[in-house]
Amino acid sequence: MNEFQLIKRFFQQPSLAFSNAYLRQGIGDDCATFNIPSEYDLHLSLDTLVEGVHFPFQANPFDIATRALAVSISDLAAMAAIPVGFTLAITLPSKDETWLKKFSDGLIQAAQFYQCPLIGGDTTKGPSLVISLQVHGITNAGEGLKRSGAQVGDKVYVSGNLGDGAGALPLVLDRPELNTGLARQFYAPLAQIDFGQKIKTYASSCMDISDGLVQDLNHICAASGVGMKIDPALIPMSEELIQTYGKGQALQYALTGGDDYQLAYTANQCQQGIYIGDVVQGQAVKMLGMDMTNTGFQHF
Amino acid sequence: MNEFQLIKRFFQQPSLAFSNAYLRQGIGDDCATFNIPSEYDLHLSLDTLVEGVHFPFQANPFDIATRALAVSISDLAAMAAIPVGFTLAITLPSKDETWLKKFSDGLIQAAQFYQCPLIGGDTTKGPSLVISLQVHGITNAGEGLKRSGAQVGDKVYVSGNLGDGAGALPLVLDRPELNTGLARQFYAPLAQIDFGQKIKTYASSCMDISDGLVQDLNHICAASGVGMKIDPALIPMSEELIQTYGKGQALQYALTGGDDYQLAYTANQCQQGIYIGDVVQGQAVKMLGMDMTNTGFQHF
Repeated sequence: MNEFQLIKRFFQQPSLAFSNAYLRQGIGDDCATFNIPSEYDLHLSLDTLVEGVHFPFQANPFDIATRALAVSISDLAAMAAIPVGFTLAITLPSKDETWLKKFSDGLIQAAQFYQCPLIGGDTTKGPSLVISLQVHGITNAGEGLKRSGAQVGDKVYVSGNLGDGAGALPLVLDRPELNTGLARQFYAPLAQIDFGQKIKTYASSCMDISDGLVQDLNHICAASGVGMKIDPALIPMSEELIQTYGKGQALQYALTGGDDYQLAYTANQCQQGIYIGDVVQGQAVKMLGMDMTNTGFQHF
Repeated sequence: MNEFQLIKRFFQQPSLAFSNAYLRQGIGDDCATFNIPSEYDLHLSLDTLVEGVHFPFQANPFDIATRALAVSISDLAAMAAIPVGFTLAITLPSKDETWLKKFSDGLIQAAQFYQCPLIGGDTTKGPSLVISLQVHGITNAGEGLKRSGAQVGDKVYVSGNLGDGAGALPLVLDRPELNTGLARQFYAPLAQIDFGQKIKTYASSCMDISDGLVQDLNHICAASGVGMKIDPALIPMSEELIQTYGKGQALQYALTGGDDYQLAYTANQCQQGIYIGDVVQGQAVKMLGMDMTNTGFQHF
C-alpha cells in the first residue's frame, strides 16, 4: 500500500471527507479550496499532539483521533464559530493498517459529530507519532469572540466542570486503556460548539480552557486590560474528580491543570454556564483567600 | 523562557507576523481570522517535514525554514494562487535559542519574499523535530488551476530544470552544510508563484512536481482522463546536475526523483516554460523510447 492508496483507503472516505456549502474542493488536488461568503469570517487554528507527551503511548488510536479533533475544534468554540472542515498532518513510525483503521474510525465519529469534514493533509513517515490538525470555522463577519473584550463590571463564567482532563492525565498515562468517566473526559472531551453559539450575542470575551483556568483567564486579563476576582468555592468540579483526589488536589487540577476544554467567558448578564467571579480593575487573576502562583500547563 | 515568551520572541515579530488586507487577526487569540471577499477562493495546503527524512539532521535551521515555507507555498503556485498567510506547528526536542533564532530568521526571509505572513500555530515539545506548515492563498473564485482540465491535443510544459532537488538530497544528507548550486536548490527552492500568475489564464491543468515528474504527470492523467507522450530529450536539466551525475542518472532524477518544486502544466498554446510532450488519448504517461516503471517519491 503506497501513500496514495493509504490516503484513499483510510482518509478519502465519504463518511470522513464529506462536503458542505463552503467547500469547493477537498482531498485530491494540490490544495483544498473554500469559497466563504464575505459576510462570514473564517477562523482557523492549528494544534499538535505528540505521543507520550499529549497522550499516552499505546493509547487506543480511536481515542487519539476523537481527542485530537475535539481539542482542536475547542478553539473554534472559543470564537463562537461553526466548524467547516479540518486538515490533518500525521507522522507515523509505520503503516500499521489495524492502527490506521481504528484511527480513521475515530476521526469519522468526531467529524460526523461536529459536522467537520476532512478536507486535506499530509501523511509522512517519521520516528514518532505526531498529529497536527488545523480546524476551520465560520462566524458572521466581525462577530468572532475574542479575548480582548472583557469590561470592568462584567461577570466571569465557565461552561462546565473543570479539572477532569488534568486529573485524568496521570491515570491514563499509567493505564492507557482506562475507561472511567475521567478517562472519557480525557479521550473524548466535548468541544463546546453549542455553548459558543448560545453565548455569542452577549459574551464580551471568551477563550477555551486548555492550559489551566488561572493561566487562561490571565490571557483574557492581559488582552482586555482588566483584572479578575475569582471565588474558588464557585469552581464547578465533578464528583468523580473530588472522590479520586480529595477536594484540595481536585481544586488544584481545576485551577492550574491543562486539558480542560470548557469555555471561560465574560458578560454583563448571566444566561449560560456557571458564575465564578468578577472582572475588576487590575492586571491579573486573584483567587479569593488563596495565595497562588500563576501557573498552568507549559508546553516546555 | 516559557512557551508564550518563546512565541513572542521568535514568531510574533512584525517582520514575520505582518498583516494584509485579508487577515482580520493573526497570532494571539484562540484562532487566526481571515475575511476573504466572496469573489476570491481560499486555497490551503498542509505539509510536514521530518528531520532525517525530509531534510538532514544537523541542517542549518535557517535553511530548514526557507525550504519548509517554499515547499508548502509551491502547492499554492500550482493553483495559480497568491499567498496570504501561513500557520506553523513545530515540535522541538529542546528550546535551543540559537537554533530558534536562525529558524525564525529563515522564516522571516521567506515570508517577506513571498509576502506570506505567519498568522498562527503551535509549539510543542517532542522526541524529534517535526515541522508542519499550512499555507493559504487566493485566486479569483473558480479560477484555481486543477489537475483535472487537461485535454487531448494540449501540450505539456514545465516551468524549469528538473532533477536538481532529488540530485541534491544524497549530497546534503552526506554533507548538510554543502553550499553548491544543487544544495541551494534543495534548501531554498523557488516556489513558482510568479509563473503560476503568468499561466493562469490559459493553462488547462497544473500541479507542482514534488514527487517526481512521471508520478505527478500521472496524477494529471488520472484526474483528467487522458494520457501523455513525453519526450525525455526535451526535459530541461541543469549543467550542474548532468556534470555531477552523468546524463543517464541525471535524467533518472529528473523523471522520478522527488523534491523538485517546478510546475507542470498543460495548455493548447505555449507562452511560458519548456515544452516536453503532448496530451493524448490514454490513461498514463509514456516516455518516448523508454520502458520505465512509474515510480516517484513515496512517503512510505
